[in-house]
Amino acid sequence: MIGDGMGIAQITASMYHEGKPLSIERFPVTGIQQVHSADNLVTDSAAGATAFATGSKTNNSALGLNERLESVPTILEMAEQRGLATGLVTTAPIVHATPAAFFAHVPLRGQYEDIAVQLTQSGVDFFVGGGMKYFNQRSQDQNDLIEIMQRSGYLISSVYEQPFATLQPNFNQKFGYFTAMENPPAFSAGRDYLPFASRTATRFLERASDKGFFLMIEGAQIDWGGHKQDFDYLLSELNDFDLAVREVLKFAVKNKETLVIVTGDHETGGLAIQPGSTQDSLIAAFATDYHTATMIPVFAFGPGAGYFRGMYDNTDIFHRMVRALGWQ
Amino acid sequence: MIGDGMGIAQITASMYHEGKPLSIERFPVTGIQQVHSADNLVTDSAAGATAFATGSKTNNSALGLNERLESVPTILEMAEQRGLATGLVTTAPIVHATPAAFFAHVPLRGQYEDIAVQLTQSGVDFFVGGGMKYFNQRSQDQNDLIEIMQRSGYLISSVYEQPFATLQPNFNQKFGYFTAMENPPAFSAGRDYLPFASRTATRFLERASDKGFFLMIEGAQIDWGGHKQDFDYLLSELNDFDLAVREVLKFAVKNKETLVIVTGDHETGGLAIQPGSTQDSLIAAFATDYHTATMIPVFAFGPGAGYFRGMYDNTDIFHRMVRALGWQ
Repeated sequence: MIGDGMGIAQITASMYHEGKPLSIERFPVTGIQQVHSADNLVTDSAAGATAFATGSKTNNSALGLNERLESVPTILEMAEQRGLATGLVTTAPIVHATPAAFFAHVPLRGQYEDIAVQLTQSGVDFFVGGGMKYFNQRSQDQNDLIEIMQRSGYLISSVYEQPFATLQPNFNQKFGYFTAMENPPAFSAGRDYLPFASRTATRFLERASDKGFFLMIEGAQIDWGGHKQDFDYLLSELNDFDLAVREVLKFAVKNKETLVIVTGDHETGGLAIQPGSTQDSLIAAFATDYHTATMIPVFAFGPGAGYFRGMYDNTDIFHRMVRALGWQ
Repeated sequence: MIGDGMGIAQITASMYHEGKPLSIERFPVTGIQQVHSADNLVTDSAAGATAFATGSKTNNSALGLNERLESVPTILEMAEQRGLATGLVTTAPIVHATPAAFFAHVPLRGQYEDIAVQLTQSGVDFFVGGGMKYFNQRSQDQNDLIEIMQRSGYLISSVYEQPFATLQPNFNQKFGYFTAMENPPAFSAGRDYLPFASRTATRFLERASDKGFFLMIEGAQIDWGGHKQDFDYLLSELNDFDLAVREVLKFAVKNKETLVIVTGDHETGGLAIQPGSTQDSLIAAFATDYHTATMIPVFAFGPGAGYFRGMYDNTDIFHRMVRALGWQ
């Protein structure tokens, strides 16, 4: 689970703001990761998520490529090959950098229409996110990728057909749901699917394969709050993400065989919680409207969680997942 | 070991600036602590160190007291009672908040002359730090505390008599050394005793009791660099502190029975490492000249290190030390 732009100051702010323990406080293991990319001390989400997904450092903006821009297998693809079920849930477009790093291989994260094609070829069993227009209102060709996916066996729906909460995805059929033509709304503007979709994803994927599953869940708009230097936006998105963590943790506690890892890809905003802050009135300062280089905490729960203690590179998240899965 | 004002951004900056792994990167266990005080979301060093030293939250400025301002035993005093040897090494005055929290019980951290008296009564076996004037140039009485300590068996010396490096403290005699009348100089102004005194302390204390030892080492001026918003000052102090960590780690690796914990009491400056930074040229931004509320990483090495994983309150550092020591 990736809180995009979620550094230690963001977590601290949310903890004090909510006034009750966050779900991540229940994680028994913590680690710290270094998040620079191959070509920049300050990573972007593309290189950050590629590090998690492939174990390779790459340049900012590249997805699923190493620093020589060669395609490298992602953990989602490796899971597919081994017969595991796979899923992606995000509050960004499904073709946005963080989810895309798990199935796409392109040098420029903005190649949304190419990334959409690669999603249709990825074999992913369950996805929920925005960005529908890159599938059915394409400019570089006239293909209707939704129709193509439906023909290949997917059940595809969207917010324009029926609310997510009324759907009952059937684990016998691959499933995709679009939450927006482009960017899903903010939590404060009524978006409410992340925790529910996270819970649905775990239940769907648990049944979809007896070999287990790999699921990536992104709280994307924590980062967008940071970019806008909008503290309330950031806090409400972090709260929503924590509710998703709670759903997944609930599942993992019951399931007993699921390793849950929660982290961020980078910090956004250079957030500081200023002197004079009280629990009821936090005073935030932002140093930048972009990302900073600071290291990011990691939280792990479940079998293999012990691999995630200590201080390590962001690429080690991949390598430690692979070890925890017994693939290496 | 306490890096005063050492948050995750400070550690990140030092890591990139040095261009080689820091000693704390070798610590196998990491944790994250919440550092608010009893009366403020943004702690000061007095309440922060009191949390570590006693397991009690207290108000900013209070030392060795709980939040009802009642005196509470410190881990150093508990160690004394159990026959362990004890030591304190700092780059601040020895009566400054962080070291004082381990032996003093006063409501106001500025009561330096009272704190000095309490040091003479503490039974501490080894100390190195500044603040000599609070012992031999007192305003509230004419007592010469240095003479009093010498009469009670201490070998006391100072930078005004001979360089620390030329001393051979004998573990059969309690030892104190003053590095300044008031504040020791910055590392960049020639101060060089912290790593050496740390090494000397471990060797002295190892021999001083067969029951083990408790030693607190503080890199105090990381905080002062943050208060001055002086990035070079902060970086050179963090480097010096990491050299002290290296000395202690070297001892612990050889000794095999020593638990080493490294953390900060709070973050100072609201430091952000800005976009555009390169390894050779980090661009720093400070949000404040005081402390911030952000959580602080913890690093642990040696027997009992596993107690320090996860996310917890700063008072838990005390409780987990007590458990690791088998006292509870």
